[in-house]
Amino acid sequence: MASSWVPNISPTSDFSLANIPFGIVSTPNDPSPHVAVAIGTSILDLKALSAHVDLAEIFPSVKGNVDIFSQPTLNAFAQLGRAVHREVRQGIQALLSTDTPHGALLRDNDELKEKALLPQRSVKMHLPMAIGDYTDFYAGYHHAFAVGAMFRGPEHALAPNYSTMPIGYHGRASSVVVSGTPIRRPVGQILLDPAAEPKQPVTGPSRRLDFELELGCFIAKPNEMGRSVGVNEADEHLFGYVLLNDWSARDIQLWEYVPLGPFNAKNFASSISPWVVLADALEPFRASAVENKTPPQEYLKEGREQNVFDMRLEVDLTTPEGDTTTIARTNSKNLMWSFPQMLAHHTLGGCPMRTGDLLGSGTISGPGANESGSLLELSNNGKKEVLLYGMDSRTFLKDGDEVTLRAFASSSGSGRVGFGECRGRIYSAARA
Amino acid sequence: MASSWVPNISPTSDFSLANIPFGIVSTPNDPSPHVAVAIGTSILDLKALSAHVDLAEIFPSVKGNVDIFSQPTLNAFAQLGRAVHREVRQGIQALLSTDTPHGALLRDNDELKEKALLPQRSVKMHLPMAIGDYTDFYAGYHHAFAVGAMFRGPEHALAPNYSTMPIGYHGRASSVVVSGTPIRRPVGQILLDPAAEPKQPVTGPSRRLDFELELGCFIAKPNEMGRSVGVNEADEHLFGYVLLNDWSARDIQLWEYVPLGPFNAKNFASSISPWVVLADALEPFRASAVENKTPPQEYLKEGREQNVFDMRLEVDLTTPEGDTTTIARTNSKNLMWSFPQMLAHHTLGGCPMRTGDLLGSGTISGPGANESGSLLELSNNGKKEVLLYGMDSRTFLKDGDEVTLRAFASSSGSGRVGFGECRGRIYSAARA
Repeated sequence: MASSWVPNISPTSDFSLANIPFGIVSTPNDPSPHVAVAIGTSILDLKALSAHVDLAEIFPSVKGNVDIFSQPTLNAFAQLGRAVHREVRQGIQALLSTDTPHGALLRDNDELKEKALLPQRSVKMHLPMAIGDYTDFYAGYHHAFAVGAMFRGPEHALAPNYSTMPIGYHGRASSVVVSGTPIRRPVGQILLDPAAEPKQPVTGPSRRLDFELELGCFIAKPNEMGRSVGVNEADEHLFGYVLLNDWSARDIQLWEYVPLGPFNAKNFASSISPWVVLADALEPFRASAVENKTPPQEYLKEGREQNVFDMRLEVDLTTPEGDTTTIARTNSKNLMWSFPQMLAHHTLGGCPMRTGDLLGSGTISGPGANESGSLLELSNNGKKEVLLYGMDSRTFLKDGDEVTLRAFASSSGSGRVGFGECRGRIYSAARA
Repeated sequence: MASSWVPNISPTSDFSLANIPFGIVSTPNDPSPHVAVAIGTSILDLKALSAHVDLAEIFPSVKGNVDIFSQPTLNAFAQLGRAVHREVRQGIQALLSTDTPHGALLRDNDELKEKALLPQRSVKMHLPMAIGDYTDFYAGYHHAFAVGAMFRGPEHALAPNYSTMPIGYHGRASSVVVSGTPIRRPVGQILLDPAAEPKQPVTGPSRRLDFELELGCFIAKPNEMGRSVGVNEADEHLFGYVLLNDWSARDIQLWEYVPLGPFNAKNFASSISPWVVLADALEPFRASAVENKTPPQEYLKEGREQNVFDMRLEVDLTTPEGDTTTIARTNSKNLMWSFPQMLAHHTLGGCPMRTGDLLGSGTISGPGANESGSLLELSNNGKKEVLLYGMDSRTFLKDGDEVTLRAFASSSGSGRVGFGECRGRIYSAARA
């Protein structure tokens, strides 16, 4: 892997030259949200760069479309298609590498570097995409099994459809927020005494507020209504990936979800990490999904064995006192369905996807005890305290707690590609 | 009720002077979608009108905002709030009434009438709003009871939560289409033999394609994330109403819906009528909802008894041969939860609503045999043929069938306020 001339890129940085994730920033000099990439502890402001440099020299295919970098979302860039994303990412890698053929453009131009290369801590991150629809799947096998077993026993943990299709449901797009946005504890209907008859819920703050560790994937190329996307054509439709925390109120969920699924238990907030890691950047880290013994329907048969990614995932919980404990470590290959399969299934009946639509993987847990992507599992539905730094512990989240998701892939040949952080801190519920 | 100088307004027209619904049209002279209202068999083109007349004379509150009528959706107009909607509707009623004080502006101006008053059949209707999120409720009591009884028996027809909250789920915004858009029969996973073990679905066209008769409601005023809308403040947030056909594939639904609810069974298409009937136009037709014997939670207590509307609803089925049968007649007061209650519940946990978001009532059925808003009920889950004109009959929809929903309210004092039609014709599934 080539090295970069940009200073302060630690070998453990998520934002190595091998990555080049895209995001939406506002900067001290330009408060209107626009496009940048992350490199080490810096960002390269593509709008500022394009104001001083003819970017069509570095990536010819964006010629005539350079204003995509002035947009407040990545949608216009995403819509240009995988070949353009690839060329732009490679062009930026060339520009930032030590042996760049474009040294004069930026590396040796101190005035421009001052304008376009800024410390990450000096910029504000925004939601990277305008999200039309958000769909959440349930493809994390060990999570689905553990939760099913908790409520229905291990023999009936998974419904028979689980092995024949990627189960999913429609989420709420309006409450997807960028990492760092404070999360208000939701109020909802809760059944305090499930044994009492008649069943009488109370309305109050959730007592079982949880996180969910997920991977999110954004749609690049849309499909026309009435036409499905073949599983082996899906790559062209997938733009890139983010971390997704699908905050969940377990007590609200338990009372509301029959018969139409989760609603207010989920729609109050979902957080995503700000940097979209392009699909190409994850290509070197392919792995096989969890084995599914049921033969797939024809439309779900993939041409490749390695259909998911081998990435380390971690969850930190930081208490109001500021103490941080890593409460879970797992891997994104713990999915039984891949994003191409999710997309093929989602569009099977002709459902149109638009550029910027978000697919969530569902909670990702491993098979082990500390590999669970939710407190529901880690605390065995509130029955077991999850031990934190010092004398503290949790079953579910307290006001003031902050949850931080992290993900990265690395190999000696390909360098390290990571997502940065997806953070959210809980604040107290509204007074009824 | 005042009468209008506009010619050809039949006493049974849905678009009387008492109505004035808003829609998005393109016209022979102006192909870019823009705002109009319906009156009788005509439309009044508000963009064309505003190009020749100072509309601030008639509705002063839009002063400085007249370009709202040049927009391709009603979102900008909706966002201005109920007081503005009221003034604009009343201003248009004054302009179009026989005794208009503004005779010279339009009534007596033949040249302008030719430009702004066009036959409805000469214009193309578009989706009226840019829909951020679409949520479908389940507030039609008789439908929920009948479907529950069909699958679980009358004693367990409704889950205990049904009487304590308006049950809802998130739908798919990208596949909401305007009346007249052809509807492709979806392909999906179907369990042909539910008794066989192991359960092995096939992938193929739905054999149980159905319609659902619903009322849709658009959001005007947004609410901030983390803040709920009080049930008695909801009126200010509700823009207006449309007919909604939430097309449903019953066989796909049956196999997929456990445990997260309907997904591909619904997301292939939902049709809405093109004219948005403003909330004010329905005020004279208030009625009481279906009685709920469970005392409501505090946040769902409404200050008024008459919280739904007394409107006649009808469903026509037209065969490929062109024969039309009215297969259901019911009333929109057959809801157990009102739209203000749906909105208060939806936002209870802080979920943000945006201008243009769509809420569906859920299928509306009456208690009687021919009052059902779906073929699932009319055919008793496919067991009974629904008789059509001549010798024809249906259990579910055939390719080439067209479903037309209609709704209107009328009273001697208030005239007739109707929705026009919500139509959709089925075409054959994609080849697998």
